[in-house]
Amino acid sequence: MTFSAWEAIKKANYIVGYKTYINLIKDMLTDQQKVVSTGMRGEVERCQTAIRLARAGEIVAVISSGDAGVYGMAGLIYQLLFQDNISLQVTVIPGITASIAAASLLGAPLMHDHCSISLSDLLTPWEVITKRIEAAAQADFVIAFYNPRSRERTEHIEKAREILLKYRPPSTPVGIVKNAFRTDQHITVSNLEEFTNCEIDMLSVVIVGNSQSFIKDGKIITPRGYDL
Amino acid sequence: MTFSAWEAIKKANYIVGYKTYINLIKDMLTDQQKVVSTGMRGEVERCQTAIRLARAGEIVAVISSGDAGVYGMAGLIYQLLFQDNISLQVTVIPGITASIAAASLLGAPLMHDHCSISLSDLLTPWEVITKRIEAAAQADFVIAFYNPRSRERTEHIEKAREILLKYRPPSTPVGIVKNAFRTDQHITVSNLEEFTNCEIDMLSVVIVGNSQSFIKDGKIITPRGYDL
Repeated sequence: MTFSAWEAIKKANYIVGYKTYINLIKDMLTDQQKVVSTGMRGEVERCQTAIRLARAGEIVAVISSGDAGVYGMAGLIYQLLFQDNISLQVTVIPGITASIAAASLLGAPLMHDHCSISLSDLLTPWEVITKRIEAAAQADFVIAFYNPRSRERTEHIEKAREILLKYRPPSTPVGIVKNAFRTDQHITVSNLEEFTNCEIDMLSVVIVGNSQSFIKDGKIITPRGYDL
Repeated sequence: MTFSAWEAIKKANYIVGYKTYINLIKDMLTDQQKVVSTGMRGEVERCQTAIRLARAGEIVAVISSGDAGVYGMAGLIYQLLFQDNISLQVTVIPGITASIAAASLLGAPLMHDHCSISLSDLLTPWEVITKRIEAAAQADFVIAFYNPRSRERTEHIEKAREILLKYRPPSTPVGIVKNAFRTDQHITVSNLEEFTNCEIDMLSVVIVGNSQSFIKDGKIITPRGYDL
């Protein structure tokens, strides 16, 4: 957590967020701070509650895990404000997004050009997602997959693997990090051939190396190209 | 800055880095901490110095701006250690990379699938870079350009713009952020037609929206797709 995020939470009298994320910061909250926590998929309602409270004069902190601007709540807050022509002071505090947290634990896989793709098709057509996987694979981007697998959706990461294998060798390094920097952190280093046999869920990030990435001493490194 | 980065710097007795970045943290250093700062393009030498000091038993903090694992020093440190079979304890502390810092100031442009491309061809062939721009443009990724323009290299961002205009309308939102969260921070909101007339340099990040991105009240938003 950054100093700015800490200060913003301390200053708020309402904390709004998904309950799993509220739990991560509950130790820093005081009895004077009120918490509004909601379940998964309650994103629109959650942001509307935050806006209603802020319009009533409260100082509200909306909590996302990782970075609020990457598949988080920042965009939704702005969209709801614009839709109803509401003028409120909004500050987006940048955070460590999951791919960067994961990369720091895996070694240095994101050292060169890379992209982030969410494998959830709840809000995005699957054809758009596969087109992006295909383009990223072909142009040799390092790829970070967000929302790689859920209970109902187990096959997307398998299809992603199939597309990637058209362009990259089975030995391409793949790293999986679950709950980075949390108590149940889990790090796996594998390869394109085998990684879908490893434990992967909604809280995991999967990072697939580019054609230059390699594994040594359990770390995944993507060279930047320096002459050594 | 995160609490972890602050603690790591406080614990170090040697601070090694590019002098511009050392300057950003000089106020938190004590007289007991020794500083080794080098100029630009001295990356390999700088990392070798850090490794030499650490092998001599010193606690060394190697400073990158943004995140050390994104076009930073983390990968180079690992590569140099592997090359000489040196065993040292390395901890990569994740940080706020420039695209995420810039995005938080521009609104919420990175809310959907996005990629980072460096326009510097010092270490990467220009053909590889253009292939990536082409693929990212075609698959509708939001794109963050790192190292968009230097004194010697002014035409790369123009060529990137030409490629993008093949796939996206001239009205596509473009944000430029220089020195995010530093004293001389500068934020520009423009579009694909006009942005190369704006001030852009090596310390800027340029973010180009996808086909859904829009500008309102001076903010760039990329919708995630929620039903509003």
